[in-house]
Amino acid sequence: MIRNVAIIGLGLLGGSIGLAIRDHAPDLRTTGFDRDPEVREAAKARGLVSAVCETAEDTVREADLVILCVPVGAMEEAARSFADALPDGVIVSDVGSSKQSVGKALAAALPGRTIIPAHPVAGTEQSGPEAGFSSLFTNRWCILTPEAGTDPAAIEAVTAFWTTLGANVEIMEAEHHDLVLAVTSHIPHLIAFTIVGTASDLEEVTRSEVIKYSAGGFRDFTRIAASDPVMWRDVFLSNKSAVLEMLGRFSEDLTALQRAIRSGDGDTLHDLFSRTRAIRRQVIEEGQDDDRPDFGRDDHG
Amino acid sequence: MIRNVAIIGLGLLGGSIGLAIRDHAPDLRTTGFDRDPEVREAAKARGLVSAVCETAEDTVREADLVILCVPVGAMEEAARSFADALPDGVIVSDVGSSKQSVGKALAAALPGRTIIPAHPVAGTEQSGPEAGFSSLFTNRWCILTPEAGTDPAAIEAVTAFWTTLGANVEIMEAEHHDLVLAVTSHIPHLIAFTIVGTASDLEEVTRSEVIKYSAGGFRDFTRIAASDPVMWRDVFLSNKSAVLEMLGRFSEDLTALQRAIRSGDGDTLHDLFSRTRAIRRQVIEEGQDDDRPDFGRDDHG
Ligand SMILES: NC(=O)c1ccc[n+]([C@@H]2O[C@H](COP(=O)([O-])OP(=O)(O)OC[C@H]3O[C@@H](n4cnc5c(N)ncnc54)[C@H](OP(=O)(O)O)[C@@H]3O)[C@@H](O)[C@H]2O)c1
Ligand SMILES: NC(=O)c1ccc[n+]([C@@H]2O[C@H](COP(=O)([O-])OP(=O)(O)OC[C@H]3O[C@@H](n4cnc5c(N)ncnc54)[C@H](OP(=O)(O)O)[C@@H]3O)[C@@H](O)[C@H]2O)c1
Repeated sequence: MIRNVAIIGLGLLGGSIGLAIRDHAPDLRTTGFDRDPEVREAAKARGLVSAVCETAEDTVREADLVILCVPVGAMEEAARSFADALPDGVIVSDVGSSKQSVGKALAAALPGRTIIPAHPVAGTEQSGPEAGFSSLFTNRWCILTPEAGTDPAAIEAVTAFWTTLGANVEIMEAEHHDLVLAVTSHIPHLIAFTIVGTASDLEEVTRSEVIKYSAGGFRDFTRIAASDPVMWRDVFLSNKSAVLEMLGRFSEDLTALQRAIRSGDGDTLHDLFSRTRAIRRQVIEEGQDDDRPDFGRDDHG
Repeated sequence: MIRNVAIIGLGLLGGSIGLAIRDHAPDLRTTGFDRDPEVREAAKARGLVSAVCETAEDTVREADLVILCVPVGAMEEAARSFADALPDGVIVSDVGSSKQSVGKALAAALPGRTIIPAHPVAGTEQSGPEAGFSSLFTNRWCILTPEAGTDPAAIEAVTAFWTTLGANVEIMEAEHHDLVLAVTSHIPHLIAFTIVGTASDLEEVTRSEVIKYSAGGFRDFTRIAASDPVMWRDVFLSNKSAVLEMLGRFSEDLTALQRAIRSGDGDTLHDLFSRTRAIRRQVIEEGQDDDRPDFGRDDHG
């Protein structure tokens, strides 16, 4: 039975979990810690958790569930910082965007503990303690990647927790998670970072032109490429092999399209562009996006 | 002095021009034609223009300004279809997304006529006569690419027309336009079409997984990749050399990032991801996007 939730890292994800608990599970008590004193102040001011603590150890002492909400590369250090203060029977979880490396890091830092790695597939391009909001997880998926042999009651408890916050829960192997998310999140981000970088380095086209005429598609990429640099550096370094694998596929497909354009093969282009349209319809039908044209900018349509 | 505007092609762009005229310049008379009878019916029902005509020739007979709003590859044929009915002194313009090829096509079809190629950098992923709305051009840029020696009064008249519809007007050479738009619109679309295609063809990751977990970034690409297949086929075929040039730059940069990931070079990743963030801020400052996180989905933030 989860009564006390400790949140380590009070940025977008940690803050949103705190606010979602306040809205959806007001009986839970939440403690929180962030290594940045300014973040702790902001967290207090916004009431992200019931109590902001001054150390990670104090944060977890009474917890039934500890959730690490720090960048993937900081998971091991953050886990070590409270390891000695963990009570018996506690469940340790996280929200990291890659799962194999986080699973290993937490197992190394917390031997013998019940660890249930998790990844709520929900976020925005903003970060920090002011960015969170309580509906972030509503109708989004949260993927759990427990090792074989993990206590089923603990898996059940974490599933119930995320369901209470409005999410749908799926359980899969960490390796498969990392491959799926490489496609649906990591490669899209990598591509967006790249094209925004390319566009800003051109000699023939000025930065100011790129910005003025960004409404033709580019501005959507700038949103994604505005995501937190530390978070994304860690994601790419920690999910290296799946990212490189999927990048290889993408590059092959891009080369094929390049060849079609060069040779004036309009049918190949038209075929692909018709198939991709169908995927959009499914994304909307599944409730993973809404169908306002242009994302409802200016609320038209 | 423009009093009568003829719109050829009553889809997203043609319909939006008609509706924007109704809102911003109600004294102008608009006639419209589309080769698809169902589109003509829908245009009548929505009142996209003052009068929907049954032939392109009837549409232009009294016009001071004719605007071609058909796919880039259909411009020449569409222009020929009304060439013989054009009155003296008429200005012919268009809204095509690439400009060198359209300029050539219109010059070939309408020798001796005053031609002012134009491209309003504004649109959505939807098309057809139901998709248009009157605020599409508000605070967006419209680029004119007249040949050297074009009558300045005609350029002035088209500039005033687009300004009335809420747009800002810029004049540049067609070749430069095609390079700029390759970066800010054509390559972003090509990349989005590619990654959505790649994701839907994987064996290890199912289509349903791609859709379920699309909120991690992929769904934004599906919006762009839902754009009209005919329009985009024509854009890539008509702006081949600038698209291939910019695609080469993008691929080089992507290869460099791939190498950084492979070698675990976190500093290179972090540097790029910090630079791209700054571009986003400029896009928002320039009013080309708003700053609602996650495009204001669920109106949070
Ligand atoms: N953003 C998304 O869209 C998204 C979506 C799903 C999952 N995630 C995952 O969620 C996690 C957090 O992301 P976020 O967007 O919430 O990041 P964020 O807003 O930057 O918040 C992370 C916070 O953790 C703090 N921190 C770092 N190391 C710490 C440590 N050892 N002990 C205590 N606090 C520490 C950071 O402080 P400093 O600033 O001092 O480092 C920062 O305040 C990441 O693993 C990310 O992969 C993110
Ligand atoms: N969509 C955007 O975001 C955007 C933005 C800026 C500029 N543009 C440019 O605007 C132009 C129109 O795009 P759109 O999005 O408005 O397309 P759309 O919604 O598909 O409308 C185009 C219409 O033109 C009709 N048509 C095709 N050939 C014709 C002909 N010879 N005579 C008369 N009508 C004809 C089409 O009928 P059929 O369906 O029978 O072919 C269709 O109804 C394109 O050149 C595009 O590059 C588009």
